Amino acid sequence: MELPYNVVIVTGVPGVGKTTICRRISGTLGYEYVNYGDLMLSIAKSRDLASTDIEMFSLDMETQHEIWKSTALKIKEKKNVLVDLHGVDQSLIGYIISLPVEIIKPDIIFVIESLEDKILKQRNKDTKIRIVDNIKSLKEHMGILRNTMAICSVLFACNLVIMKNDDLEECLNKMENILNNSNTA
Amino acid sequence: MELPYNVVIVTGVPGVGKTTICRRISGTLGYEYVNYGDLMLSIAKSRDLASTDIEMFSLDMETQHEIWKSTALKIKEKKNVLVDLHGVDQSLIGYIISLPVEIIKPDIIFVIESLEDKILKQRNKDTKIRIVDNIKSLKEHMGILRNTMAICSVLFACNLVIMKNDDLEECLNKMENILNNSNTA
Amino acid sequence: MELPYNVVIVTGVPGVGKTTICRRISGTLGYEYVNYGDLMLSIAKSRDLASTDIEMFSLDMETQHEIWKSTALKIKEKKNVLVDLHGVDQSLIGYIISLPVEIIKPDIIFVIESLEDKILKQRNKDTKIRIVDNIKSLKEHMGILRNTMAICSVLFACNLVIMKNDDLEECLNKMENILNNSNTA
Repeated sequence: MELPYNVVIVTGVPGVGKTTICRRISGTLGYEYVNYGDLMLSIAKSRDLASTDIEMFSLDMETQHEIWKSTALKIKEKKNVLVDLHGVDQSLIGYIISLPVEIIKPDIIFVIESLEDKILKQRNKDTKIRIVDNIKSLKEHMGILRNTMAICSVLFACNLVIMKNDDLEECLNKMENILNNSNTA
Repeated sequence: MELPYNVVIVTGVPGVGKTTICRRISGTLGYEYVNYGDLMLSIAKSRDLASTDIEMFSLDMETQHEIWKSTALKIKEKKNVLVDLHGVDQSLIGYIISLPVEIIKPDIIFVIESLEDKILKQRNKDTKIRIVDNIKSLKEHMGILRNTMAICSVLFACNLVIMKNDDLEECLNKMENILNNSNTA
Repeated sequence: MELPYNVVIVTGVPGVGKTTICRRISGTLGYEYVNYGDLMLSIAKSRDLASTDIEMFSLDMETQHEIWKSTALKIKEKKNVLVDLHGVDQSLIGYIISLPVEIIKPDIIFVIESLEDKILKQRNKDTKIRIVDNIKSLKEHMGILRNTMAICSVLFACNLVIMKNDDLEECLNKMENILNNSNTA
């Protein structure tokens, strides 16, 4: 069966459950799963620049930007790909879009959202997430992500789906229906 | 008298009272009223593709997109036009911008808003509106519309007016003042 | 020491405390401070078009637009500049972006925010601010500004910083850290 979308972008703040969703969906439907951060790290490794995330994010900004761009170019060559990325990165110097809009043209963009409480609890369990957030700063981050993806959906005239991950199975069902069939409008 | 704007875009979610406002305003001021959906249907009819809205929206996506584009090209030829459209369409596969930004360049964009309660009541009366919404999903839709039109206003460096339709006569008065005279900044 | 940013844009609604912050920050760090409105007025004066703000904003729209554009071109020639402007202007005909995105390319954008109460109190003290706002309309204005600057940050792929001016010294400290060192990500 032919898949209706070539480039599926799935975004969400850390701890929202994005990666679990992406892996299950791409496994079921036949999209190639790409985790943007993992691909960045494997490129950094292949160039002997870093062997862990922490090492990679300690590189100077120009080198990080170069790796980020190479990752985008690698994804651009793929077909029926589902890209798992934050969408907007948060750091001490503010928010910055992490979707490489100059290189990758999405056909559909998902923003996965969930209750702030649930996200913060999930982060406590995950030692990989190092961002310190409270409910207020998390709300701000989620608002900026939603706006930024709305902007991208306008720039590319592509679909924007706001997806609640309150119940995982329900969320997976909805995404499957959308990604299986483009003609359900 | 010369009208200050060439292309006026009026957007709002279904049930907000957009069409009533647009018809009265354009009648009073001398703008040509265009309902985007109605023009789409008349084009579909002229090509023997559909005779009702339901038939048109059941056509395959490519054909719908073609009709949508032809409609935009037709509007582009007009002068002092007031275009009544949703701005953002909501479907099972998410939100998508319905303003054809590649073809039509707005001079001013209105976003008509109202209380969620009032909109839902209005929809119950109108058998043409088939979207099932609750207060929460309606709030989301209105937020996405406002953001999307803010984005368009930045892209075109045009005015963005957020207009409350809580009292119809008051709303009409405000719009008349704006659309009569461009120099009230 | 080399400064990490060439063009710093600082936006905020009237009364948020933007100018105090901008003057102190640029003095401390060595960025050239430019107040967009003041530069516009000095250009208007040099052309014998207006001698006060009120006179300038009473000029016809085309002349105002020309002054606004000339101001942007003048700023474009500068280096390590910190530009203080509203970001979005509010008038009887709605909101319009005041950042000249076609001419100035920002490297980082700040949105200064504060509690609505605090802003309205500050406006009462400042006779230069002539906008009549209540808490609701102020919230709307701040939301539109935040969205519009998020849009600009996407268009330029530059950093967006939402900065709370609840405590002036804390706010200055945070901005100093960001504007001193680009590598704190």
